[in-house]
Amino acid sequence: MQRADQKRTLKLIPYGEALKRLLGAAYIKPICYETVPIERSFGRVLAEDVTSEVDVPPTDRAVVDGYALRSEDTLGASPKNPVTLRIVGKLYPWSPSTDVHVSAGQSIYVTCGAPMPQGADAAVMIENTVSRDGKIELRGTVRTGENIASGGEDVKKGNLILRKGDVLRPQDVGILAGIEMREVKVFRKPVAAIIATGNELFELSKRDPTRIVDNYALIVSGLISELGGVPIRLGISPDDLSEIKRKISEAVEKADIIVTIGGCSVGEKDLVPDAVNSFGEPGIIVHGIRVKPGKVAGFGVVEGKPIVMLPGLIASTLAGFYLILAPLIGLYSGLVLPVISAKTNHDLQADNRPLYRFLPVHMRRVNGTFIAELIPAGSSSLSRFIKSNGFILVPPNKTLKKGEEVNVTLFSNEEFTHFE
Amino acid sequence: MQRADQKRTLKLIPYGEALKRLLGAAYIKPICYETVPIERSFGRVLAEDVTSEVDVPPTDRAVVDGYALRSEDTLGASPKNPVTLRIVGKLYPWSPSTDVHVSAGQSIYVTCGAPMPQGADAAVMIENTVSRDGKIELRGTVRTGENIASGGEDVKKGNLILRKGDVLRPQDVGILAGIEMREVKVFRKPVAAIIATGNELFELSKRDPTRIVDNYALIVSGLISELGGVPIRLGISPDDLSEIKRKISEAVEKADIIVTIGGCSVGEKDLVPDAVNSFGEPGIIVHGIRVKPGKVAGFGVVEGKPIVMLPGLIASTLAGFYLILAPLIGLYSGLVLPVISAKTNHDLQADNRPLYRFLPVHMRRVNGTFIAELIPAGSSSLSRFIKSNGFILVPPNKTLKKGEEVNVTLFSNEEFTHFE
Repeated sequence: MQRADQKRTLKLIPYGEALKRLLGAAYIKPICYETVPIERSFGRVLAEDVTSEVDVPPTDRAVVDGYALRSEDTLGASPKNPVTLRIVGKLYPWSPSTDVHVSAGQSIYVTCGAPMPQGADAAVMIENTVSRDGKIELRGTVRTGENIASGGEDVKKGNLILRKGDVLRPQDVGILAGIEMREVKVFRKPVAAIIATGNELFELSKRDPTRIVDNYALIVSGLISELGGVPIRLGISPDDLSEIKRKISEAVEKADIIVTIGGCSVGEKDLVPDAVNSFGEPGIIVHGIRVKPGKVAGFGVVEGKPIVMLPGLIASTLAGFYLILAPLIGLYSGLVLPVISAKTNHDLQADNRPLYRFLPVHMRRVNGTFIAELIPAGSSSLSRFIKSNGFILVPPNKTLKKGEEVNVTLFSNEEFTHFE
Repeated sequence: MQRADQKRTLKLIPYGEALKRLLGAAYIKPICYETVPIERSFGRVLAEDVTSEVDVPPTDRAVVDGYALRSEDTLGASPKNPVTLRIVGKLYPWSPSTDVHVSAGQSIYVTCGAPMPQGADAAVMIENTVSRDGKIELRGTVRTGENIASGGEDVKKGNLILRKGDVLRPQDVGILAGIEMREVKVFRKPVAAIIATGNELFELSKRDPTRIVDNYALIVSGLISELGGVPIRLGISPDDLSEIKRKISEAVEKADIIVTIGGCSVGEKDLVPDAVNSFGEPGIIVHGIRVKPGKVAGFGVVEGKPIVMLPGLIASTLAGFYLILAPLIGLYSGLVLPVISAKTNHDLQADNRPLYRFLPVHMRRVNGTFIAELIPAGSSSLSRFIKSNGFILVPPNKTLKKGEEVNVTLFSNEEFTHFE
């Protein structure tokens, strides 16, 4: 039954079903890829397997400054019985490798990275020789292959180097450059437009002692970036249907994903769902999820683009972010949040309502074991999330015992520095 | 004794002493701070403790859509004995809080975030009421303080919120905005200029089948970014003293820290140390460290700015990076690499030389335990670092037993996604 001051009644659906409708739906636009220059591919997510078309190094190379030689010539060399080899040439890393040859009793001066001359099968470090009158003296044996990198030793032609979905770290970018790839196919970063709603809000750039600063849109923008999205903040809409609609239209123009904050509960000023539905079918797809906080979160589709409605109290905003928006952005960006198992540090009574519970935790290591400490506080407490670095999702009617194993989803990779 | 083809002999010093000379020295420029707008402070490192000058929320607030009331009025309310309260007004989040009062038998409609009216000490959710004819009916008691966020509940005036050295995450940025800080003092990102040296190198933007692409500078630039530095790549210098000096002069102009790659070993083409010394005192401070690989790494000071010489084979380049350059950049940027203890997965024989060993490992979790797997390969193998996500530093003469605890330094926070 709908009450006088209540705009609507929500039919709550299970979280799993909400996720299925969100991610499985045909209305999600196809994931897009783009090609970027290798130099600008750091942190991007590979959209293709990469197989090398070359050997690295292309041929055998010396990896020390010293002398290339035939290892058999050094058999029996010792301080008492030094072996002497004639120096017949010099090779540098930039020298062509084909026109120099080492015969019995000969050696070639090589600097680190130089191609190995024909006939040589090892190199001796300069420090382990005495050179004089165009000859070197060795006082120990040199093993076959010593101080050499064989052609293809690092990367073999035809080998799979990196996989679709890999996040490109500096060393990955380096190996792509090393096989002379100049560009690479990666997931395109989805653009997410953020609309804050509420007459009570004002922009941080302004001043208004009678209102509350809009800091949630800033937080959401930072979280979107960390998940590989490109946030754009469209500012604040007052609780006015036509203003909210105007902002949504703007967002549809500019972004792949639309995010609203606030205005999606059941009060008379909660106009976001009406605004979404005013754009026609399908409009709101899910509004109301069996999760606490975050119950009034929802999502829909406006002009072919997904729109996620985040509630306006920080705990529910973040629950909606991590449970709905994060998986959606991850679908486009290719990034997922890290999940680590940990032990809870105290009991948690089961709730008697059929709701999943989104609970921020502070994860830390104690004697090598991950401990997840529950950080309780009110639903409007942001400082609670300053003390936390991840969350757990506790199923309905589930009691947690101290020491029980739980899966903690970290707020982001960056949280890793907040462990100890 | 110096050999004919050897430019110099290195006097190796212990790693700890090298670090002390690097970081303790008076020639390191004072660390710099800067002020950035809150909106652009994500990921930056706080240079000051932050204490709130306001209460958040400033006054008591309703955290549900519903009715503000006096909890004592609801005592004894039950389905059989409902309590009726008259609705005497409405409050929204943007309403001033001072001019509305609730007396016995009264209630005020509130939306989530609205200030609590005088006299009220709790709020009931709209869903738990029936409203009709300007009245609400309650069928249960409401506890004192229920559905309210007290003034200062989230942040108390005078409380320390964040500390110097904290990396600003989205929620941290949000809380700073929430207390209406508009800018914040952070560590200034040090600019590090990278000079690759070697006749054998060419730029990825060009093509040259007779040479090797310069990918190490790209890797080092990515690593510098991850440690909070701003890399600039000055391209390749051939093995030519005046060219190297020219590049170093350019770097001194543009950067806080100068990084060279290659050209610092003992071969005849290793001209970087000469170039550094040509700028006058103090020049090279340390050249040669008891660590393997990375033995020929070193550092000095040119025109008041630190210069780090990284060797030119990838394993030693990265050893030099993580052992010398990373702590130096971290001193400026305020960032440190994460260290996690783990168990080795096999024995490691002691080396008979008095050298620390820098060994890349692949860290993963097996049944909740971190396992560090050694990734052996040649000193020129980059693919080895693709398979790794961190390193261990093994002291001279140290034998590792399978299962022994070691400290793994992760290559970066990003490596966290490469754990399982």
